[in-house]
Amino acid sequence: MAAEAGPISKVLIVVAMQTEAMPLVHKFKLVEAPAHESTFPKGAPWVRYHGNYKGLHIDLVLPGKDAVLGVDSVGTVSAALLTSFSIQTLKPDLIINAGTAGGFKAKGASIGDVFLASDVSFHDRRIPIPVFDMYGIGARKTSAVPNILKELNLKIGKLSTGDSLDMSPQDEKVILSNDATVKDMEGAAVAYVADMFSTPAIFVKAVTDIVDGDKPTSEEFLQNLIAVTAALDLAVTKVVDFISGKRISDL
Amino acid sequence: MAAEAGPISKVLIVVAMQTEAMPLVHKFKLVEAPAHESTFPKGAPWVRYHGNYKGLHIDLVLPGKDAVLGVDSVGTVSAALLTSFSIQTLKPDLIINAGTAGGFKAKGASIGDVFLASDVSFHDRRIPIPVFDMYGIGARKTSAVPNILKELNLKIGKLSTGDSLDMSPQDEKVILSNDATVKDMEGAAVAYVADMFSTPAIFVKAVTDIVDGDKPTSEEFLQNLIAVTAALDLAVTKVVDFISGKRISDL
Repeated sequence: MAAEAGPISKVLIVVAMQTEAMPLVHKFKLVEAPAHESTFPKGAPWVRYHGNYKGLHIDLVLPGKDAVLGVDSVGTVSAALLTSFSIQTLKPDLIINAGTAGGFKAKGASIGDVFLASDVSFHDRRIPIPVFDMYGIGARKTSAVPNILKELNLKIGKLSTGDSLDMSPQDEKVILSNDATVKDMEGAAVAYVADMFSTPAIFVKAVTDIVDGDKPTSEEFLQNLIAVTAALDLAVTKVVDFISGKRISDL
Repeated sequence: MAAEAGPISKVLIVVAMQTEAMPLVHKFKLVEAPAHESTFPKGAPWVRYHGNYKGLHIDLVLPGKDAVLGVDSVGTVSAALLTSFSIQTLKPDLIINAGTAGGFKAKGASIGDVFLASDVSFHDRRIPIPVFDMYGIGARKTSAVPNILKELNLKIGKLSTGDSLDMSPQDEKVILSNDATVKDMEGAAVAYVADMFSTPAIFVKAVTDIVDGDKPTSEEFLQNLIAVTAALDLAVTKVVDFISGKRISDL
């Protein structure tokens, strides 16, 4: 990546839900790329906003609405596809995957906390055959960003990813084994693709619900989504402000 | 797709494991596309074989070996990525997703049976929020192929997809609700992408293990993989022979 040699120029922000994305679109004064200028293949519902902010070119992409059902195309498959095609066509120096997550109070998470993920893994890809089991878990360290952590006073924790909003007993067992503090539906898939295409990636995850608490995740998630998105967007803005003018090795 | 107007010209066969792929590569006398001619982005472990067979151009693609762990890159994320980039670069008229699967004896499946999937869905994407729940399940009908079914005497059943080789009680509940006869780790993701990019797709799945039987899936899967792959390859060859010279609407 060219970024190693000079300051970071192009940042790709990958977000799963429109509710999470729009405050950032407004904050960075991004505009939507019109369909006829789309860098994405015809048929994909993916959406791109872009613009310049403090010397950076920012592309913010989201998987868009399911063509039939009209809901945000959440989860690992859409996130992996979107990130792959975005890397190939936009050639970012750095990826920021920003989103909401469930947090574990036993690991110190509270509603509204914003975490940077030190590690990512999957918790719903159980393949009980030697070596395939490790492939399924897909554990990887994220790009080290010691200076961001020091300067911005964010929490750090391990992130575990699965395609369900809830948590089955089997998921829970793997999440414990993954030593995760936060749980989302996209992170490890974004990391898998970023790694494949040698693009540094960081993961900013804001806690909308306490997984090991009393309330059902879906209820707590919807209750807190808007408020926690504000905390997420504040944290992402601080990260982007910090990145401005720096090299990857400065993060 | 041009195929609607004339005979099918380009067939894309998507396979997850090398063991499943190699007999087909030999049968159709395909050759591996060298790395410097790759149509895939740098960094992706995906592999393509291609050649001409009975008037068809066949591309057979597989997700390849994990760069670190060396095992086949099975599962929905890799299958979706591979299928997407293959559609964009190879522009097939028809996709055949061929592979092994678990079968349910309660629904009439036996080891070595080969099924065409009438429907696909996911069983490990539980999102208990209205409409998102349907997005998670991702149920879709596959391209109708009444003449293939009639001529080739294949079984037909619904296919449910998840990223685990085993089956948790939660998976089982959704699989029952999906009314599935066979269970795999890629099909619904391939169907999602094929649908997105308006490419007809059929799903040929051979049963390596009985999910509702006595033996652990991983043991039975490995015991039967080679023998069942032969049945799979025979069925795929019969399907490809049938396709030769026909239009999509003839299938």
